[in-house]
Amino acid sequence: MWVERLAFIVGSDSFEKLMMSIILARTGTAMDVETHLFFTFWGLNLLRKGGADKAKLSMPPLLRNLATWMIKRKMMKTGFKKPSEMLKELVETGKVHLHACSTTMELFGLTRDDLIPEVEDIVGAATFLDIAADADKVLVLA
Amino acid sequence: MWVERLAFIVGSDSFEKLMMSIILARTGTAMDVETHLFFTFWGLNLLRKGGADKAKLSMPPLLRNLATWMIKRKMMKTGFKKPSEMLKELVETGKVHLHACSTTMELFGLTRDDLIPEVEDIVGAATFLDIAADADKVLVLA
Amino acid sequence: MWVERLAFIVGSDSFEKLMMSIILARTGTAMDVETHLFFTFWGLNLLRKGGADKAKLSMPPLLRNLATWMIKRKMMKTGFKKPSEMLKELVETGKVHLHACSTTMELFGLTRDDLIPEVEDIVGAATFLDIAADADKVLVLA
Repeated sequence: MWVERLAFIVGSDSFEKLMMSIILARTGTAMDVETHLFFTFWGLNLLRKGGADKAKLSMPPLLRNLATWMIKRKMMKTGFKKPSEMLKELVETGKVHLHACSTTMELFGLTRDDLIPEVEDIVGAATFLDIAADADKVLVLA
Repeated sequence: MWVERLAFIVGSDSFEKLMMSIILARTGTAMDVETHLFFTFWGLNLLRKGGADKAKLSMPPLLRNLATWMIKRKMMKTGFKKPSEMLKELVETGKVHLHACSTTMELFGLTRDDLIPEVEDIVGAATFLDIAADADKVLVLA
Repeated sequence: MWVERLAFIVGSDSFEKLMMSIILARTGTAMDVETHLFFTFWGLNLLRKGGADKAKLSMPPLLRNLATWMIKRKMMKTGFKKPSEMLKELVETGKVHLHACSTTMELFGLTRDDLIPEVEDIVGAATFLDIAADADKVLVLA
């Protein structure tokens, strides 16, 4: 058996959930897997202009900024780029698709202009269920 | 391919996980999808009488009450009902099934009377694995 | 339909995510299900020597220690062993496989000696996607 299509629900804007999404999607592209990421609730913050690069580790406030800075520096040293650049590269492969949740857009009062250009479309839960139906595995990162 | 049956593990009592469960299940009912929700650990709080309507956003304590109140007000304005009413309506469609985790019931010292009447049964992990086996997709909201 | 193989991504080191992993994997062993657990990010802490037994509930700091102590005592009374012993027993069944994420090992500066002997191997996301491809269901506990 092989995976041809993955679907993720990204419901958190934490740095670790963002990195899990990026690393799994990127690994998928190298294995010819098509990945669909549906960003909802807090996850939608990652698609806002500048949002991905502001993501912080989910830790108590006092430690969060320092720990996030440390892990980002460490990741840069081991060859990772900035989250926004990694997202851009993923979309440019043509195998990774970023979807924004329409219900969350309305709740947060956001418009298309608030989102990075790499977002493919703004869709509702019904469209996501269609995408999920066609995926071999559906993972929730929330 | 199409989805006929979804299974969720709801392990959190946060407002956002509750809404993700409700919105996905509700969207499913309109597409003739049968959805099974297994509430475990903190998630079980959502099945306690009055529990779903008390769910709060997972945010730092100082902001949580205000932000939850704001998002609920916004949701009411865009046509959402109270969580308890939405759960009731979902179960009334006959397509959504609420299961309470028996291990958690015992750990928290709860009895059937503590739960809302919409709960279908109190089951263990083995029964959940059976339900999951028959589901096309299993999502964890925890 | 039946489940022959499950794959979990464990991305949190909280006590509740650990217990959900253990209970589902243990239930699986009794039903002849093979379970693969891939520990990444904070989840990797659970594979460090002494790590599983230090896992705490994800709650505000002031309540966390007391609540964790209470739930552990309650679980012991209802027949649960210490997390480290449960993990050991699971691996000894031959049906449960513990995988450590290589990217996280590098980020956290860990070596094989820092991990419990029950860990089967240290693998990257590509190997995990292979494992996931062969699994009937993939669950994310993060």
